[in-house]
Amino acid sequence: MTTSTTPSSETSAAPRRRRGSATIASIAEETGVSVPTVSKVLNGRPDVAPDTRARVEAALERHQYRRRTPRTSTESSLVELVFHQLDSAWSIQIIQGVEAAAAAENVEVVLSELGGEHRPPQHWLDNVVARRPLGVIFVLSGVDPGQRQQLDARSIPYVVVDTAGEPLPGVPTVGSNNWAGGLYATRHLLRLGHRRIAMISGPADVLCSKARIDGFRTAHEEAGLTVDPELVRHGNFYVDGGFRHGIELLSRPDRPTAVFAGSDMQALGVLRAARELRLRVPEDVSVVGYDDLPLAEWIGPSLTTVRQPLTDMAGTATRMLLGLARGEQPATPQLDLATELVVRESTSPPR
Amino acid sequence: MTTSTTPSSETSAAPRRRRGSATIASIAEETGVSVPTVSKVLNGRPDVAPDTRARVEAALERHQYRRRTPRTSTESSLVELVFHQLDSAWSIQIIQGVEAAAAAENVEVVLSELGGEHRPPQHWLDNVVARRPLGVIFVLSGVDPGQRQQLDARSIPYVVVDTAGEPLPGVPTVGSNNWAGGLYATRHLLRLGHRRIAMISGPADVLCSKARIDGFRTAHEEAGLTVDPELVRHGNFYVDGGFRHGIELLSRPDRPTAVFAGSDMQALGVLRAARELRLRVPEDVSVVGYDDLPLAEWIGPSLTTVRQPLTDMAGTATRMLLGLARGEQPATPQLDLATELVVRESTSPPR
Repeated sequence: MTTSTTPSSETSAAPRRRRGSATIASIAEETGVSVPTVSKVLNGRPDVAPDTRARVEAALERHQYRRRTPRTSTESSLVELVFHQLDSAWSIQIIQGVEAAAAAENVEVVLSELGGEHRPPQHWLDNVVARRPLGVIFVLSGVDPGQRQQLDARSIPYVVVDTAGEPLPGVPTVGSNNWAGGLYATRHLLRLGHRRIAMISGPADVLCSKARIDGFRTAHEEAGLTVDPELVRHGNFYVDGGFRHGIELLSRPDRPTAVFAGSDMQALGVLRAARELRLRVPEDVSVVGYDDLPLAEWIGPSLTTVRQPLTDMAGTATRMLLGLARGEQPATPQLDLATELVVRESTSPPR
Repeated sequence: MTTSTTPSSETSAAPRRRRGSATIASIAEETGVSVPTVSKVLNGRPDVAPDTRARVEAALERHQYRRRTPRTSTESSLVELVFHQLDSAWSIQIIQGVEAAAAAENVEVVLSELGGEHRPPQHWLDNVVARRPLGVIFVLSGVDPGQRQQLDARSIPYVVVDTAGEPLPGVPTVGSNNWAGGLYATRHLLRLGHRRIAMISGPADVLCSKARIDGFRTAHEEAGLTVDPELVRHGNFYVDGGFRHGIELLSRPDRPTAVFAGSDMQALGVLRAARELRLRVPEDVSVVGYDDLPLAEWIGPSLTTVRQPLTDMAGTATRMLLGLARGEQPATPQLDLATELVVRESTSPPR
C-alpha cells in the first residue's frame, strides 16, 4: 500500500554534474540569482518569488546539491512524525515509541497526517523545510524522488517505520520480521493439532501480506501438509475485512478449525463472525491475531497473537534519525526487529 | 486528578503596578539590562545568561507584562498539544480531532507527553516559548501561575481539553457534560427495569467522577429509588479497576443486575469479571461503559456506552485556540459539549 518501487535518481539517464559537486555560489551563478537568495530557498524562507524558488529548486535537484555540514542540534529540537493515516489503536503505539525516544534527547515531535495519502503534498514539505527539523520519520509513507532531493539538499535526514515490509533502496528503515510472524503463528496452530487452517492476510499489494502468507505456507511444508488455496484470503487489516472473510470461511461445510487473522482488528472481526454463527472460540474455532495491540489481552477470549514491536520499531527509528542528524552513519541502516508469538485464550487443540 | 485549584495571581497580596502597564523599556530599566536583552528573553532566545534571564522573568511576572499585539500567523504555524500521559485508545481520539482542525488551517501540531505529570517542567516551557507556537492545548494538564504568566507575557494563548470536568478560572476550556452522561446511562438501565444497579466511577479526586455519580443518583431519585451505597465504587478508569470491583460486586449474594462501569476500559474489566464468574452479559448482568472508544462497538457483546465526544472536544479546543491566536475573543471561553447514550448489545432487561 505504500512504498511503490521508487527509481533511484542515480539511475536516471539525464546528464548531470558529479553528485554533490555544486556549491551555493555555483547554483546562484547558474540560475542568475544572488547567493543569499539560494540560501533563503534552502532554508525555506517565504520571501522568495515563486518562479525564482522553482528555478533554484530545479538547479538544486539537477545537481543533487547537498548541504556540506550536518545541521547543529541547537538550530532546532524538532523531529517530524508523518502518518499516512492516524489509525486508532495502532498509531498510538508508534507515537508512544517516538515520543519516549525523542523526549530522552529533549527533542519535540511534530505530528502530521497525510489524510490517507502515501506521499506528502508539496506545501507540507515546504513547511517542513522552513521549520528546519532535525529529521523526518515517515510511517507507511515516504517521499517521491524530487521531495527526497529537497530533503537531501538541506541535509534533513529521514527514516521510515515500515510496517509494510518494503524498504526503499538506500532509505534508512526499521521494520519487523513479517515472514517469521506468519511462520510462528502457523506452527503454533499446527502443533496444537490443527490441520485445516485458514489465513486472512492483509491487502494483496502490501508486501508484508505476502511475507506472512509465505511464513504460513512454509510452516505447512515443514509439517508435510499442503495449503488449501480456498482458505487463503486477503482482507484490509480492519474489523470488517475479518468479519466478512470470517463469515465465509466459517460457513463452509468443510470449515477450518483455526483462523490466522493477519491483524488483531481482523481477529476481532473473526470473533464477531464466530459469535454470529454460534461457534465458540477456541472450542469450535481457534483464532490468532497479529500486532498484539493492548486490546488483544483485554478482550474475551483474550487473543493469541503475533507481537509486532511497534513501539520498539518507532523508538529504534527515532534513535537512528537523531544519530543521522548528528552526522553519524547507522551501523545497519535497514533493519527488522523480531516478531514473537504471544499465546492467550483464543487458541486450543481442535475438538 | 488534574487542575487542582490554582489561586489567581490577581488575589495575591504583593503590591504591584497596574496589570499590563509595564513596557519592554521599563522592564529593561528596572532590571538594569538592555531592551534587546528583554526582547531576547521574551522570544526564548538561548543567548542570555541564566541569572539575567531569571531577573527579567521575575520582573515580567511581577508586572504581569503582556505583549501588546497578538502574534501574526506568519511567525509560526505550530500549535503545541500536551498530554499528561499518552494513553492508548483514548489519546488518539483527541489527537485526531486536533490534527484535523489544525490541518484545516495549515497548522502543524507538536505533540508532548508529560510522563504522567500534570504540570510541565520548566525546561519544556522554555522550549515552547523558543518555538513561538500559535498556542498550546493542554489535555488533562495545565500550567502553574508562574508558567501561565510566562505564556501570557508572550501572548501565547492556551486552552484546556478538560475531561476531568474542572476548568481553571479564566482559562479557555472545552469539556463535556459528565453529569448528564451519568444521568443518561442510569435512566437507560432503570427504564429496562433494573432496580439494583452498581456504579464504578473514576478516582474520587477527579471531579468528573463525582459529576457522573451525581447523575447516577439523580436518575434514581427521579425513579423514586434510593442508591445502595455499597454499590457505588471508585476505580481508576483502567481495565484492572473495572475487573477488581466487578469481581467484588458480582460475587455478592445480592449482586446487582446491572453495572454502570464509568469508562469503556472499566467496562472491559467488568466483562472479564463476568466471564470468570460464568455470568452472561447481558442475560445475567447488563454493563454500560463511558467514552464510546472505537473498541466499544467491536467487542462481543458490543458495549452500550455514553459517548464522550473526545474528537469534537479536541477540534473545538483547536479552533478556539487558533481564534485566540488571531486575537479573537471566544464567545464562550468555557464550554461543555453534550454527551449521549449509545445503546448496543451489553444491556437488556433483567431476568
